Amino acid sequence: MNDNSIVARIKSPQELKNLSEDELKTLCGEIREIIVSVVAKNGGHLASNLGAVELTVALHRVFNNENDSLVWDVGHQSYTHKILTGRLEEIYSIRTENGISGFPKRSESPHDAFNVGHSSTSVSAAYGIAVGKQLSGDDSSTVAIIGDGAFTGGLAFEGMNNAGKFKKNFIIVLNDNKMSISRNVGALARYLGGIRMNPKYLHLKTKVETALSKLPILGTPIRNLLKRSKSRVRNLVYKRTLFDDLGFAYYGPVDGHDIPALEKALKAAKSVSRPVLVHVVTTKGKGYSFAENDPKSFHGLGGFDIDTGEKISSRRDFSGVFGDNLSNMADENKKICAITAAMSTGTGLVGFSKRHKDRFFDVGIAEEHAVTFACGLAVEGMIPVFAVYSTFLQRSVDQIIHDAAMQKLHIILAIDRAGVVGTDGETHQGVFDVALLNPVPNVKIYSPCYFDELELALYSAIDDDGVVAIRYPRGGQPYKPLDYDCTSAPFDIYGDKSSKVLLVTYGRLFANACRALDALGKEGKGFCILKLNRIKPIDIEAIKAAEKYKSILFFEEGMKTGGVGQSFLCMLKQRGYAGRLSIRAIDDEFVSQAEVERSLEILGLDEKSMAESVLSELSEV
Amino acid sequence: MNDNSIVARIKSPQELKNLSEDELKTLCGEIREIIVSVVAKNGGHLASNLGAVELTVALHRVFNNENDSLVWDVGHQSYTHKILTGRLEEIYSIRTENGISGFPKRSESPHDAFNVGHSSTSVSAAYGIAVGKQLSGDDSSTVAIIGDGAFTGGLAFEGMNNAGKFKKNFIIVLNDNKMSISRNVGALARYLGGIRMNPKYLHLKTKVETALSKLPILGTPIRNLLKRSKSRVRNLVYKRTLFDDLGFAYYGPVDGHDIPALEKALKAAKSVSRPVLVHVVTTKGKGYSFAENDPKSFHGLGGFDIDTGEKISSRRDFSGVFGDNLSNMADENKKICAITAAMSTGTGLVGFSKRHKDRFFDVGIAEEHAVTFACGLAVEGMIPVFAVYSTFLQRSVDQIIHDAAMQKLHIILAIDRAGVVGTDGETHQGVFDVALLNPVPNVKIYSPCYFDELELALYSAIDDDGVVAIRYPRGGQPYKPLDYDCTSAPFDIYGDKSSKVLLVTYGRLFANACRALDALGKEGKGFCILKLNRIKPIDIEAIKAAEKYKSILFFEEGMKTGGVGQSFLCMLKQRGYAGRLSIRAIDDEFVSQAEVERSLEILGLDEKSMAESVLSELSEV
Repeated sequence: MNDNSIVARIKSPQELKNLSEDELKTLCGEIREIIVSVVAKNGGHLASNLGAVELTVALHRVFNNENDSLVWDVGHQSYTHKILTGRLEEIYSIRTENGISGFPKRSESPHDAFNVGHSSTSVSAAYGIAVGKQLSGDDSSTVAIIGDGAFTGGLAFEGMNNAGKFKKNFIIVLNDNKMSISRNVGALARYLGGIRMNPKYLHLKTKVETALSKLPILGTPIRNLLKRSKSRVRNLVYKRTLFDDLGFAYYGPVDGHDIPALEKALKAAKSVSRPVLVHVVTTKGKGYSFAENDPKSFHGLGGFDIDTGEKISSRRDFSGVFGDNLSNMADENKKICAITAAMSTGTGLVGFSKRHKDRFFDVGIAEEHAVTFACGLAVEGMIPVFAVYSTFLQRSVDQIIHDAAMQKLHIILAIDRAGVVGTDGETHQGVFDVALLNPVPNVKIYSPCYFDELELALYSAIDDDGVVAIRYPRGGQPYKPLDYDCTSAPFDIYGDKSSKVLLVTYGRLFANACRALDALGKEGKGFCILKLNRIKPIDIEAIKAAEKYKSILFFEEGMKTGGVGQSFLCMLKQRGYAGRLSIRAIDDEFVSQAEVERSLEILGLDEKSMAESVLSELSEV
Repeated sequence: MNDNSIVARIKSPQELKNLSEDELKTLCGEIREIIVSVVAKNGGHLASNLGAVELTVALHRVFNNENDSLVWDVGHQSYTHKILTGRLEEIYSIRTENGISGFPKRSESPHDAFNVGHSSTSVSAAYGIAVGKQLSGDDSSTVAIIGDGAFTGGLAFEGMNNAGKFKKNFIIVLNDNKMSISRNVGALARYLGGIRMNPKYLHLKTKVETALSKLPILGTPIRNLLKRSKSRVRNLVYKRTLFDDLGFAYYGPVDGHDIPALEKALKAAKSVSRPVLVHVVTTKGKGYSFAENDPKSFHGLGGFDIDTGEKISSRRDFSGVFGDNLSNMADENKKICAITAAMSTGTGLVGFSKRHKDRFFDVGIAEEHAVTFACGLAVEGMIPVFAVYSTFLQRSVDQIIHDAAMQKLHIILAIDRAGVVGTDGETHQGVFDVALLNPVPNVKIYSPCYFDELELALYSAIDDDGVVAIRYPRGGQPYKPLDYDCTSAPFDIYGDKSSKVLLVTYGRLFANACRALDALGKEGKGFCILKLNRIKPIDIEAIKAAEKYKSILFFEEGMKTGGVGQSFLCMLKQRGYAGRLSIRAIDDEFVSQAEVERSLEILGLDEKSMAESVLSELSEV
């Protein structure tokens, strides 16, 4: 953007209020250009951001964001908000180490009312803020902006159910783009479709009301009914929306790319002393034809070529290997079902969804339901596989404990994006799944490092019982020594067995360990690696193998507390191991955004840190 | 019951089908008598079970439960089902060690379709079962029976949103007794109230439809509208329920104590190829006047006197101490807010709810919302305290990680029923909270053993920042040595400091350790006790104090994996501790129902096990 652009002149959202309708249009075009170029370079969420440009401008013109609170759900649509609230320059650093976050963050700007990254939190958070303001005597507005996809999450419903009884103004803007991340699913989506299809809804409603009130002749039964209870009949005769039923006045649908219409609706919403839902219809990917035509694949992505829309080609990844294998296995085994929570593309299940349509279930952004639904399928002898990002599995903990593991039902959790995930940042790091699943009885966990191991684990899991989790990282296969053969054994030993130092690890860190081994080998020094393939339960033979070494270094790409390292150490200690042992893992901190390799380096989980630790131990023992 | 009773003759629910209307009434009376006498003796859920007697009988008459699946939500209402499905004799053993469970359990009977204990799972589970049947070509029916309270949980909504698009028969029976555990809350409750208030609703709807179709003269605007789009206008003119909007045909409301009416509705529901919701209105506590008049306090309870309704007086308990203290503190500190998920009585917040009405929030059975809502309050400077049973906190894991801890918001989790809970059994054991919270950064955890310590922890928590959890057991104060003084220090040392053996523990197990100390003292043997008051983070001084001992025994009333013992051991090991150490905790198993003392004995966490372990160590070192 050059300095003559409108966007460059906007230092604070207040200044938006002075722009003409034409200037606003120009501004929106400029913002779209910025968003496309930033995401093309840094990756990020494109289609959802492009869809919310006018909506964001309108919100900032109607509300005074220094006092009023705009609570964005998920944050996939907050780039325009960031640009308009003093972060135009920083936007180019988005999703990079030390750059601004791809999601709203309170530490970044007073304009960000609530941190986010996971879906469906905005209504509850905003309602808490609104009640807090009420208790403090603060009259400013609170607005939750939530997509129709996020609305499929139960938390949003819990929030609605609570906020619907509020006696003061509280606004939900439903940004309805007909999509979750994939096409939106479920009865609610169908219902919204029904409202959308009828843009004259509000108009029509008014007309019917007027018509009825003017009718000179009403049939006796209706007249009698009217006499008996005016309000009761009004409810019967005039259609109310589902949102009315939940206590919200319904305003809409509004064209989400028409700023004057948006402002009119938002101003109306602001003026009443009760909860209001403003239904805004937007086009995901608006203004960038490639994204408009294929919003699913332009939802969240790495870089791409602006002119051709071509994505920077990505290597074959774990998600694809998982999806292809599962799909192949399902050809033979008719019991296999696949479940995703609005992530069919991300989890590699698009092929499965086409090949095994009747056994594929996209449940919407509803991770709790996904697990309990899987349990129901398992009761009937199906073999459900729930493919889910590690970070979102945090939503299913109780269902895994209470519905799946306690009943010993056979379900499979295919945990994608396990470990650090890179530029999506701290809300999306897959570093808790092991610590959360480890304490749960009747759960097995595999942590493959290579595609072949993922496949082997999947075969074992299908033939097993109870809850079986397979966790694998984002992206492609890491370095693999030529002489290393994948195995389905619970653990593997590699390297110099005569060394006094043993490095224990699992998942993709094994590749870093092998690199460290190569590096030290060049200096004529060796050590041994114990690679756990199954991390829960830990094979007692692995402990027996480990206790022969004088020094054990455990490296773990996950939380230290509750991690595999601690369990490993305790098993050793229970057997009387008296040697040296240390654990390097994520130590009671959240992991900030950075490229994966860089994150591992910061955490001391890279090959260099490993080599240094080993060297230091070699000199000690 | 004598052998002439009808209930004693019913060996299988099939036999219900041959009974006359009068016999059914007698049967329901007999069942109520059994339920009252069983709960009076064994404790359990009374009011909800009494309310569902006729409904259960009707369900078993309409459905063939050997093929059809009845999925009970929560299970608070399943006693009649158990009695009618061959467990009449076992019902007297309910909630006792080796007796039948107070909740449905597949291992107990083929009539129990799905295990449960936590709320709001039935729709998702039943829908999974229904889809599983569809895939297997099984035409039997699947019915979820869910209360209006459980409907406030987001998982139920996620289930509805998914099941609402099913193309085959699927039935939800909404057992509407106007209550969660306390009086039901939220917009949905208000909405249901609206439908209930209008018992002629269905009738009226039919009448309006008929009237409109018969009207010879319709005003031009309406006629035109009708012409333009018949179905569109039908939707506008005829009120549909929220459930219709979610894809369910709505049948109701039906009197839940009128068996013929129930059967008629259920048969109608069974006959259609689509999802149906049958809205049944019941009276919680029906047939036992004390429970009808006070269903809240007769929800879940210990024993009581049948003739007077007087509950077996319970000692002052942790819940009460928590509630009273918080209420007192809130007198002074106007920022303190209290939140409960439908558990104001259980968590001791009734007093607070009366004294600080505007700062008390019962959010319904919505633990996810409770935490995110608390985070919103915290953003506005309030100090929200969410009082929740340990087992239900499992529902809030992601909200604690993603909304609270990651933003470093100051919220307090008052975790009641932490540790083993007794006769509610495995679904309700509070044994996971420590392992689930331990890996989360920015979280502190206190685990008081005595009332005074709870109070001290609460004071610290209010003045602190970040997420602070205080966990305390069900029931009253355990044994306390006369010379032991409560302190707000992060840990305490008690007993014989000159011993070579140190027992480390926290929470109420300290009392058992003290008893073991007394017992060994009589034999002239001593040991030292390190009592952790704050279990996360563990004070490094506690480690330094511990490492002086040759042998350390850690006792923990919670899961071993991810527990405090493992962290303690790792901290010791990192400092090079070379002495003996063992951890006794719950080792990768679920804990069955039994009285608390007995559970601790089975787990080896009682005074006798402690004394034996110490003796054995004393002889080793």
